[in-house]
Amino acid sequence: MPPPGRYPQVAMVGGGQLARMTHQAAIALGQRLRVLAADADEPAAQVSPDVVIGSHTDLDALRRVAAGATVLTFDHEHVSGELLEKLIAEGVNVAPPPAALLHAQDKLVMRRKLAALGAPIPRFIAIEGPEDVAAVDDFAALTGGPMVIKAARGGYDGRGVSIVDDAAQARAAVADYLAAGVAVLAEERVSMRRELSALVARSPFGQGAAWPVVETVQEDGICVTVIAPAPDLSDESAAVAQHLALRLADELGVVGVLAVELFETMDGELLVNELAMRPHNSGHWTMDGAATSQFEQHLRAVLDYPLGDTSPVVPVTVMANVLGAPEPPAMTMDERLHHLFARYPDARVHLYGKDERPGRKIGHINLLGDASTASAKLRERAESAAHWLSHGEWSDGWNPHE
Amino acid sequence: MPPPGRYPQVAMVGGGQLARMTHQAAIALGQRLRVLAADADEPAAQVSPDVVIGSHTDLDALRRVAAGATVLTFDHEHVSGELLEKLIAEGVNVAPPPAALLHAQDKLVMRRKLAALGAPIPRFIAIEGPEDVAAVDDFAALTGGPMVIKAARGGYDGRGVSIVDDAAQARAAVADYLAAGVAVLAEERVSMRRELSALVARSPFGQGAAWPVVETVQEDGICVTVIAPAPDLSDESAAVAQHLALRLADELGVVGVLAVELFETMDGELLVNELAMRPHNSGHWTMDGAATSQFEQHLRAVLDYPLGDTSPVVPVTVMANVLGAPEPPAMTMDERLHHLFARYPDARVHLYGKDERPGRKIGHINLLGDASTASAKLRERAESAAHWLSHGEWSDGWNPHE
Repeated sequence: MPPPGRYPQVAMVGGGQLARMTHQAAIALGQRLRVLAADADEPAAQVSPDVVIGSHTDLDALRRVAAGATVLTFDHEHVSGELLEKLIAEGVNVAPPPAALLHAQDKLVMRRKLAALGAPIPRFIAIEGPEDVAAVDDFAALTGGPMVIKAARGGYDGRGVSIVDDAAQARAAVADYLAAGVAVLAEERVSMRRELSALVARSPFGQGAAWPVVETVQEDGICVTVIAPAPDLSDESAAVAQHLALRLADELGVVGVLAVELFETMDGELLVNELAMRPHNSGHWTMDGAATSQFEQHLRAVLDYPLGDTSPVVPVTVMANVLGAPEPPAMTMDERLHHLFARYPDARVHLYGKDERPGRKIGHINLLGDASTASAKLRERAESAAHWLSHGEWSDGWNPHE
Repeated sequence: MPPPGRYPQVAMVGGGQLARMTHQAAIALGQRLRVLAADADEPAAQVSPDVVIGSHTDLDALRRVAAGATVLTFDHEHVSGELLEKLIAEGVNVAPPPAALLHAQDKLVMRRKLAALGAPIPRFIAIEGPEDVAAVDDFAALTGGPMVIKAARGGYDGRGVSIVDDAAQARAAVADYLAAGVAVLAEERVSMRRELSALVARSPFGQGAAWPVVETVQEDGICVTVIAPAPDLSDESAAVAQHLALRLADELGVVGVLAVELFETMDGELLVNELAMRPHNSGHWTMDGAATSQFEQHLRAVLDYPLGDTSPVVPVTVMANVLGAPEPPAMTMDERLHHLFARYPDARVHLYGKDERPGRKIGHINLLGDASTASAKLRERAESAAHWLSHGEWSDGWNPHE
């Protein structure tokens, strides 16, 4: 098949839903996305004709997907810096560059860099070997006890994170990671009101653009709901979060989308929790609720196009993730979709073409509100719709036949 | 490659931009679109992995694209009813059905049916052979002279249509068509204020949904701009147009999207001009400006899903087509996109991956306005953006370096 040729060719490592939705955005720009997928049934591989099958740990597979591409980018952060440096030496344009990406790959590197930049973060200590374990006691005494123990590398969606109450629990959790050869950081457990996300994009030219700051609702470490913009966040706090995210994108040399996940403490302080350098779950609302979606913006950024308008289209948008139910529903997904559309004709459904497994992200739903919409009500509707789609049952007991 | 399987499989005859944008919509519904394309470089074939190469006039190619599909639908109206009836006899689910589609294929059948239904249409006569030509004189005397001569079959985008001033010119135009074996209709040339389009969708279940009525601006028979909703159209007239379109969808047994192109006469009367039974240029604004895009709605309709909300997301949306310039621009499309994005960060660009040729539809741009936006100003911006993208020159002489 001849390549489109007339337009830039973006190659993306990873064939998941982020690549799938980036392909949708690429189509509008006259392009098509080339993806490196582990197999032909991955979400993006199902819908793009330009698929390289292979592993992101295989230099040769990376070379094949990058061959002739304008730029190589990512739908996850798992490609090693070493491999990327080899590709760069061979002339591949990698965005974000590995020196930036490292901060989304290694939480210890990220925390130390943020500390050096004076960015607000929870207090932490690094535990890189048995000799560091004793410091846990002093840290517990200093911070009061409750801690979050995080593997420096390899965790996502709540994995690689342990919540502990005291120094003894902390030492036990740390020992497990160290035994596996993984460095650890121990953070104070912040008393927080909620979690926020500041999503920005940055181009190689240095242009930055920030979407409205959103509230993210997590369950078991997985994002389940996003409310855009974050309700009752002061303009001042929102501006602080946006400026922080733009500054980090610049200081770290990010190219593409950067999500800065934040804790809002009980006294209104904002602390950086995590960084992601790719389109992010907290930005799925932009597909329907913003002038430019995060997927188009990521393409624009890595191609060094001028960035798009990040204004919201409506006063409030809620995104609810569709997570695989514990038990397979009696109805097929097709039947559930019929009922969903009947009850919620305004639901913007985004499905990833994945098999359903408990807790797996298989899609999301966006609902848009107007000036008269209470965001709590919109959230209720979005969560009800997402719950129906995964479980085949209405969480509010709704029965159209009653 | 394994088919997604878990979701319905829609097959579309035609690999043009309408199929390309339908594939984008299919991705969100967990699906991918299978297309019958003439070659692998057609707009939809570039971006979907499920492509059958072949002709829509070849029964075997139609069988291959329909094999195993939930439903077979169209991005154009050129498939003969005979072939479709054969497919139906073999068990293929065809939407819209050929008995409906005929009214978008044959203007004479359409006009007679609309007359029988009492729908408002321009006065016309049918000229199916040399024996009918004499009637042109009486018709000219009755209507005053100026006429539109239309080939009953085969015309689109202004082709197959001749504008004539009197009976003598009409006879000459008619003779050309009859010599080519094409039946003709002669219509009175309506004194009109503007053209409108009423876009609706209908499902096999019988559900109908209407988007706001839009104004369409034509140049040389090609749609260049769409303003949604139509400015200064009374609520009453809009409702009349929507009800008419919904009634026609029902009476004709349409399944999918139906565009009813209308003339608004100088005294405010609405007359049906053309019908199209597929996503339509006058509905491209819905991709960004409506709760449900025409492409998703077409999929929902042909799959008999409940239809989506057709509300506009913002008070006004303008769509401007990007038509190939008479001379190739000095800048590449990629360079033009850079400049476009720099000047109009809010432009929603949709490119079709086509080679540029004079007058060819190669993309479109949507701009959204809010309550404070004058639609005339938005139209000016959209047309300026589209002109830039095709010509590489700013129609208003804008120079960022001045």
